[in-house]
Amino acid sequence: MSKPKFKTIAFDADDTLWVNETFFSDIESKFVAMIRPYAKGDTDTIKKRLFETEMRNLSLFGYGAKGFTLSLVETAIELSEGQIPATGIQQLLDYGKDLIQHPIHLLEGAEETIKSLSEHYKLMVITKGDLFHQEDKLARSGLADLFDYLEIVSEKDEATYKRVYARYDLDPAETLMVGNSLKSDVIPILDIGGHAVHIPFHTTWAHEKVSDSKQAKYQYATLKSLNELEQWLEEHGA
Amino acid sequence: MSKPKFKTIAFDADDTLWVNETFFSDIESKFVAMIRPYAKGDTDTIKKRLFETEMRNLSLFGYGAKGFTLSLVETAIELSEGQIPATGIQQLLDYGKDLIQHPIHLLEGAEETIKSLSEHYKLMVITKGDLFHQEDKLARSGLADLFDYLEIVSEKDEATYKRVYARYDLDPAETLMVGNSLKSDVIPILDIGGHAVHIPFHTTWAHEKVSDSKQAKYQYATLKSLNELEQWLEEHGA
Repeated sequence: MSKPKFKTIAFDADDTLWVNETFFSDIESKFVAMIRPYAKGDTDTIKKRLFETEMRNLSLFGYGAKGFTLSLVETAIELSEGQIPATGIQQLLDYGKDLIQHPIHLLEGAEETIKSLSEHYKLMVITKGDLFHQEDKLARSGLADLFDYLEIVSEKDEATYKRVYARYDLDPAETLMVGNSLKSDVIPILDIGGHAVHIPFHTTWAHEKVSDSKQAKYQYATLKSLNELEQWLEEHGA
Repeated sequence: MSKPKFKTIAFDADDTLWVNETFFSDIESKFVAMIRPYAKGDTDTIKKRLFETEMRNLSLFGYGAKGFTLSLVETAIELSEGQIPATGIQQLLDYGKDLIQHPIHLLEGAEETIKSLSEHYKLMVITKGDLFHQEDKLARSGLADLFDYLEIVSEKDEATYKRVYARYDLDPAETLMVGNSLKSDVIPILDIGGHAVHIPFHTTWAHEKVSDSKQAKYQYATLKSLNELEQWLEEHGA
């Protein structure tokens, strides 16, 4: 491998290293099916109301499965106008627990790429969500020992990245961020003068979507999967 | 001030810098009052069942207000055998939100002591609980700028303290930990060869209690309030 320009490679975790949004979407579909007999409105209306509850609660709960579960319960009570029975609420709590315990499905190329890169670079995970849950997922991924740093943060914006990079004395010019979210993994890094590679996941949570006009203002590489990352580094990292 | 032996002072946050357990206890009392018409058993039985639910869920939820709220809902459904109405569940969600937004009541001496110590030492907060919630509480405390480091961790045991001290290159011999919990703030620090001062809070969560026989094995200073910390440092820190 040629001498890398980058010394540290930072990875988002959910939907970058392993599947996440799919598990949330599955629970959302189960929620819709469960609530429909009690609620007015079609599937889209129910999903819209859930999303509105999540956004309203974001400033209290932050990201993650526990806040999502609390929002499921709240939306169920609202949409059913208080008619949802306690057994239905218990079902929602169980969905939340399933979500927290979901198996770790590593994405294509994750294991091989992280193993190989760990021999040449310092590796970091920067993820948002519930502290306890994210630590548990990394432990269950089998990849934890390959990472030098783990940062679980409450928001992924310019201020957060500046703070994290400063904490580890990382030069943005020598650090590459890799993630599936333009909003959380790519744009704030480019805004602080850093480097980022985008590896889209097939599903994007509405909250993470970025308008085409905003996207057009930024230049970044897009890869199909982590399998392409080493080749990209060969071409761009030297 | 004489030359300190300690370079860094680390503080627990909940019930060390500001009131916490009191807010949880208040919600617990409200929970008991709300659930009694639906449940068999007296106040102690209801509290015991809530605690059992919390402990059962700890490995899924970790510490903090969101997991506590989910456990309130689960216990209410169990104790009422599914008879609790959705309006009651909504009340519990509102209790949880109140808990997350509770005002920050700094403990006696916290503000003056932290301000004064920040001129002589590096200061750190090491706390467990919900990441987002703890960051928000520190921001609202007005003390955030006086601390050099903030560490929100999922568990406070020997492994965690070793990791945190290593991350900031802190020598346990030159670092003092200050907190209200023998189990989380004092004993693991002494076990890694560090220094700790105990400042008890008037209420201790059952999960944090330590047996007298275990306490007797450890030697540590106990202060009445943060007001006594500077004097103690004058006597022991040089």
